[in-house]
Amino acid sequence: MGNNIEDSLYCELAEKKLNSSLIFEGSILKLYFDEVKLPNGKTATREKVSHPGAVAVVPVNKNNEVILVKQYRYPIEDVLIEIPAGKLDKNEPTHICAERELHEEAGAVDGKLDHLLTIYTSPGFSDEKMEIYIATGFKEKDNKPDHDEFLSIIKVSMKKCIDMISKGEITDAKTIIGILSAKEYLKKKKQK
Amino acid sequence: MGNNIEDSLYCELAEKKLNSSLIFEGSILKLYFDEVKLPNGKTATREKVSHPGAVAVVPVNKNNEVILVKQYRYPIEDVLIEIPAGKLDKNEPTHICAERELHEEAGAVDGKLDHLLTIYTSPGFSDEKMEIYIATGFKEKDNKPDHDEFLSIIKVSMKKCIDMISKGEITDAKTIIGILSAKEYLKKKKQK
Repeated sequence: MGNNIEDSLYCELAEKKLNSSLIFEGSILKLYFDEVKLPNGKTATREKVSHPGAVAVVPVNKNNEVILVKQYRYPIEDVLIEIPAGKLDKNEPTHICAERELHEEAGAVDGKLDHLLTIYTSPGFSDEKMEIYIATGFKEKDNKPDHDEFLSIIKVSMKKCIDMISKGEITDAKTIIGILSAKEYLKKKKQK
Repeated sequence: MGNNIEDSLYCELAEKKLNSSLIFEGSILKLYFDEVKLPNGKTATREKVSHPGAVAVVPVNKNNEVILVKQYRYPIEDVLIEIPAGKLDKNEPTHICAERELHEEAGAVDGKLDHLLTIYTSPGFSDEKMEIYIATGFKEKDNKPDHDEFLSIIKVSMKKCIDMISKGEITDAKTIIGILSAKEYLKKKKQK
């Protein structure tokens, strides 16, 4: 349990798993349909999507531009503007995944990674956990997308990124959080 | 398609649905296993979770405190600190859902709602779209959680909220985005 929640409150709020059925196991997702006991003793059902976990990185180059990728997202049938990101391979350390995605999607190599935040993208129905990094001081080479990955790179100043968020041109949750945190990180670093 | 993406780029990146199988239809989620044609003509599979959409609200009271809820999240087996939020009922306008959740979860009534942002929580595998609002000028009454909803309210200054985000005490994506946007919104409002 999170270290910011008192034990007694945790017990007042927690649900207990009674039954669990694995409905679907794909190459990425698992879907469970479970029965739980509520804090008041009643029962309820829960639909849960299990995800391998992911990493996202805000790559800020030497011109202080953020490298973003435009990518088609099948679930929403649209192209989104996002920071480079990817799912964790089994047992893969998150910083290794971050370096891989930086190279594949943004063509950024040999940089410095700093961890910004850990987030849950949609904890009401999914366990997806994401580690967000910032990358600086990297060399820019050609990107090397996976064979089934199609994307287009844009380089955008931090100011313009913030503007794109307020205008609704950037709508991806991890990208909004990554950019806003990276901005604060760079501001603090400059003040030192 | 998003109005920020050129037509030609959209065509270069888009995937075309070839087949779709509905694997699971629960009371909240639907899971599809689809086959798509990639931009290079090859085929691939896609696992997609369909979600009814949601609303989240940052309630800022007259003492400039944010009303947050601690709530057990079954998928991650932990209690999280979040802004009030809820799923849309069928055909429900988002501001009506926002007012309902504000009353049910935070006990906030008769306030003013302003739209902050629209986000996709996890567009790689889910179509969940969320409208984020800020509520101000409301009256504080007892909250009225649903019969199967258990939560505990805390009231936290904006400064402390930001601190909790950097310390990793707030990890829910919509809550981080809501708080950071609400901070900017209030700053701009003060400057006017």
